[in-house]
Amino acid sequence: MENYTIRRMLPGDCTDILSAIKELAKALKAEEQVVIKEEILLSDGFGENRLFECFVAEYDDAIVGYVLYCTMYSSWVGKKAFMEDLYVKPKHQRHGVGTRLWRTAVKEALKDGCNQMEWGACSWNTSAIEFYKRKGAINITDIEQFHTYRLSSESMHKFVNSAEKMGDSDGER
Amino acid sequence: MENYTIRRMLPGDCTDILSAIKELAKALKAEEQVVIKEEILLSDGFGENRLFECFVAEYDDAIVGYVLYCTMYSSWVGKKAFMEDLYVKPKHQRHGVGTRLWRTAVKEALKDGCNQMEWGACSWNTSAIEFYKRKGAINITDIEQFHTYRLSSESMHKFVNSAEKMGDSDGER
Repeated sequence: MENYTIRRMLPGDCTDILSAIKELAKALKAEEQVVIKEEILLSDGFGENRLFECFVAEYDDAIVGYVLYCTMYSSWVGKKAFMEDLYVKPKHQRHGVGTRLWRTAVKEALKDGCNQMEWGACSWNTSAIEFYKRKGAINITDIEQFHTYRLSSESMHKFVNSAEKMGDSDGER
Repeated sequence: MENYTIRRMLPGDCTDILSAIKELAKALKAEEQVVIKEEILLSDGFGENRLFECFVAEYDDAIVGYVLYCTMYSSWVGKKAFMEDLYVKPKHQRHGVGTRLWRTAVKEALKDGCNQMEWGACSWNTSAIEFYKRKGAINITDIEQFHTYRLSSESMHKFVNSAEKMGDSDGER
């Protein structure tokens, strides 16, 4: 473990982080869904209104893993964290790097006042799920029959535009 | 519909919003999970670093529904919105109030640069799900076998503390 360093991402890391994001998406069989660009990561990840936090794992000055999370809000418990990605390159797995990255994110989220951490995992990804469960994770989908629904950008526009066509104002005052 | 007004929440609405949050949680058979206090809603919902947005539906100057959402982050598409709650009191359902509240949130989220909207629904809540699907919603849990996992606040503390006991520093520099 001595050769691995966990640190907060720096602007110059965005090229490597994007490449790791694509690698993880490929492993999840969803590479075509990655449309984000390096300059978006840069502008959303730094500055006053940061939209996410990211920590990287380095080995011999190369980024070999990352954890990316954001805050979200629960009307039941208040501020919470959503872990979007936790990834370690295959060659560097089984050295405790994922645990350290994840723990760093959990620690920071607690410091930032988050009352829960949530994330998604595909049900076929059993080795990841076993890893999560060993740290006390519970499956909300199983326990509460919680399913995730999504409106794509296209559906969002369609929803809003359909009302405007009908002359149905939102009546906001 | 003329008698219903949709407007952004005001600080003075927090009492009514909290009462509606509890009503919705009761309908979802999870009332005991609501630990949030009115003063937290007030401090998190207003000011410079707002953690959520909320619109309310009024009828005869009384709040009869609300939509509460926050932003989150996708490493695949960037900024997105998470709709935490969409609720209309039973007496005022079937008047299009839910659609208008939801549409207001979708419109605002688009204006704010969000590329998707996600939310959760219990699989037994079939009337809500049919309503969502009519607006173009897709079920990520079914399509991508996406399950939601959670670490409670207690598990988060346990995870962090276990490392400190072992003397395993996070090595952040």
